[in-house]
Amino acid sequence: MRKLSTRPAASKTESPKTSFWRRSLSELGKRTERPAISWLMQMTLENPQLISLAAGFTDNSTLPAREAKKLLSEILGERASSDRALQYGSTVGDAALRALTAARLVSLDADAAGRPSKLDRAAYAKERVLITNGSQQLLYLVSEALCSPGDIVLVEDPTYFVFLGIAQSHGLRCRGVRTEQDGIDLAHLEEVLEELKKSGQLPRLKFLYLVSYHQNPTGITTAFSKKANALSLLKKYESAAGHPLFLVEDAAYRELLFEGKGTPSALLAPRARERVVYTSTFSKPFATGVRVGFGLIPEPLFELMARLKGNHDFGTASLLQSLLSRALQSGAYDRHLAKLRQRYAAKAERMQAGLLRGMSRLLSWQKPQGGLYFWASVKKGTSTSTSAALFRHAVERGVLYVPGELCYAPDPVRAPPRNQMRLSFGNASEGEISEGLSRLAQALSGR
Amino acid sequence: MRKLSTRPAASKTESPKTSFWRRSLSELGKRTERPAISWLMQMTLENPQLISLAAGFTDNSTLPAREAKKLLSEILGERASSDRALQYGSTVGDAALRALTAARLVSLDADAAGRPSKLDRAAYAKERVLITNGSQQLLYLVSEALCSPGDIVLVEDPTYFVFLGIAQSHGLRCRGVRTEQDGIDLAHLEEVLEELKKSGQLPRLKFLYLVSYHQNPTGITTAFSKKANALSLLKKYESAAGHPLFLVEDAAYRELLFEGKGTPSALLAPRARERVVYTSTFSKPFATGVRVGFGLIPEPLFELMARLKGNHDFGTASLLQSLLSRALQSGAYDRHLAKLRQRYAAKAERMQAGLLRGMSRLLSWQKPQGGLYFWASVKKGTSTSTSAALFRHAVERGVLYVPGELCYAPDPVRAPPRNQMRLSFGNASEGEISEGLSRLAQALSGR
Repeated sequence: MRKLSTRPAASKTESPKTSFWRRSLSELGKRTERPAISWLMQMTLENPQLISLAAGFTDNSTLPAREAKKLLSEILGERASSDRALQYGSTVGDAALRALTAARLVSLDADAAGRPSKLDRAAYAKERVLITNGSQQLLYLVSEALCSPGDIVLVEDPTYFVFLGIAQSHGLRCRGVRTEQDGIDLAHLEEVLEELKKSGQLPRLKFLYLVSYHQNPTGITTAFSKKANALSLLKKYESAAGHPLFLVEDAAYRELLFEGKGTPSALLAPRARERVVYTSTFSKPFATGVRVGFGLIPEPLFELMARLKGNHDFGTASLLQSLLSRALQSGAYDRHLAKLRQRYAAKAERMQAGLLRGMSRLLSWQKPQGGLYFWASVKKGTSTSTSAALFRHAVERGVLYVPGELCYAPDPVRAPPRNQMRLSFGNASEGEISEGLSRLAQALSGR
Repeated sequence: MRKLSTRPAASKTESPKTSFWRRSLSELGKRTERPAISWLMQMTLENPQLISLAAGFTDNSTLPAREAKKLLSEILGERASSDRALQYGSTVGDAALRALTAARLVSLDADAAGRPSKLDRAAYAKERVLITNGSQQLLYLVSEALCSPGDIVLVEDPTYFVFLGIAQSHGLRCRGVRTEQDGIDLAHLEEVLEELKKSGQLPRLKFLYLVSYHQNPTGITTAFSKKANALSLLKKYESAAGHPLFLVEDAAYRELLFEGKGTPSALLAPRARERVVYTSTFSKPFATGVRVGFGLIPEPLFELMARLKGNHDFGTASLLQSLLSRALQSGAYDRHLAKLRQRYAAKAERMQAGLLRGMSRLLSWQKPQGGLYFWASVKKGTSTSTSAALFRHAVERGVLYVPGELCYAPDPVRAPPRNQMRLSFGNASEGEISEGLSRLAQALSGR
């Protein structure tokens, strides 16, 4: 197999190049770095012979082409619905979709909790739903609303790397909180909060960011009790902070669970209505080409985030919102989701089998209950970094993974582990999963 | 007709209310005001009996429902194209749409210039096209890339008020440049530049923002020579600024001209490739519910703006891009546009007739050659402000306009005229245009 360059290109990709150019940029513009992951994505595009176990893309074979065609044909075939789909809408989102979103969250949490009577209905009010261009835009808006350069956010170790891109660009300081098999390590969270308090930095802390369902990258789901306890801990430190400390719950992978009713969201916790910014997306469960995400936002923040959305784009495309509304209303969304769950469960089984077959001695990992990712550690501590031999060998053998270190925030108080990797079964076919893992096993065993 | 409250609600709409809440916000969050226009939009929604000559919505009767249905059915009926439409794409946009966009701009400028050989092909390279969620997102990204709080942008007097929302939120200082019947007043532009130079503020200046075709709100089209001369003037002041001074050309209404070939864009001017950020949209000519805009961006800025787009949403929805690509390729876009032009030309005639019939003594105005707007001044100088009697009388009689003052940037060196208004023929039917104008005539003449 031909040799590939496995190092990110150096300053060539940095632009503007000259100081004359650079002086025209904003502080944010000067600060914003090229995300490390973009180089991995480019490699995948430029080397189609590579099997990518890196991409977070979803499964092509399950894309709902037939369903989308039927729904769009209905929407565009009738005057009232086609007018709504093809005209500007309101900045906060289509009224029908906002109501469907709120109702869906009530039903997800009621099912998961098993005791619907306990729900604080006001926490799920449709007036608090903001429709966005994927949940990524919601993460951007909440960061923009709450954080100035130098402000602090708490993230999981490891966490979603595209959120780290936002934080980098905005000059935020991230502090990593350790995770356990059922989510965030509460003792470590308290330790970090206590340390921020003692060093007088608590007023700069704005929120705790949790990717709480089948996390990207680890596949871990945070237990409900941990989310509730994290909220209580944040509350305890609010008087020292001088302002609310929010929990941003990113539930992007919530609906991609393989079976069962799942775990309640943090919205079910006491005082969630005032402190939880819940965000998720319809894109991953339905079709990633139909970018519609949303947030459920505490009332005093909602109006501000809607203003920011107004400046960004004054509303997500009506056509996409109409499509999702009709998919939800007609049951097409749920029928598609049921198929998708089976499919991802089968692909996760295939990855599990491939790992068990060739990698038990080389890697340690835990099989996820949903989402798109396995998280693995190289037992003998070999570095998985893009600059290390293993990565080069893997690429030479034709397989790509995400080096784990890219998923750790820069945090001065700890060095991230170097021996981890994210393996995705989302986009690769069953055959590619098996073949990719066998190539990876060769790279790992130096064959 | 029942009395309506015509004053924006006071602090009730301001949130977060308490200082405890406010302290959790970013500097940007604390600064961002509710845009004045959002109250007008809310009034329209809440009072359906009002005839809105305020909304910038497009014409419902011309929305391309049949065409969109057919194109989407083709796209989703074939595996390769449906996979592309329903899967994630790249952050910068679909390769086919980027190429079609670049080619379309070449053709628009070649037609308008009549001398295609003069085009600097590199200024139109498809690699410089960034696809965005409407052109609004491009305006946001370029502001974010170039401007820190306190930086200066030059805008037309009057200008597009949603851009003023971005500027307000980012803490930018806007300086208004007077406009004439063929666009920006170059003598005044030079005066403002000279004054910024003398007062040592030129290093804070980042760009000149021109809405150059059938401007929102005045309907004025900027002559090509003015754009080229404005670029030269900016160049002249670059050494004093210490960095490039960009021309951001917002061509959102370019394709909505009633007849003829139009005016070349600033991309045709010398050195445009290095200094012009050109932005436009496919949404207004095709369907505003299909939000797809774009920018053509100088190379050193492109990479940075793509990074920012990656943080915002890592790519505009593939489904929308596929739809626009196919509409452009198949000719459906151009066929639709031809109909749209006729329709808007007819509606502009209707507005012109209505104004001539009842308002010649009351208003002065100029009939536009395209776009969606008439700009009118009350002859006797009556205030059009939301707090003035005229606005209240108009609403009581059931018609809404945009008070002209909302379209002027806050600029300490001049007070905006108070007697202007924007009248849109975009969304209203012919009957509503006539009836709305007759109600406005009553309000103006105090009947």
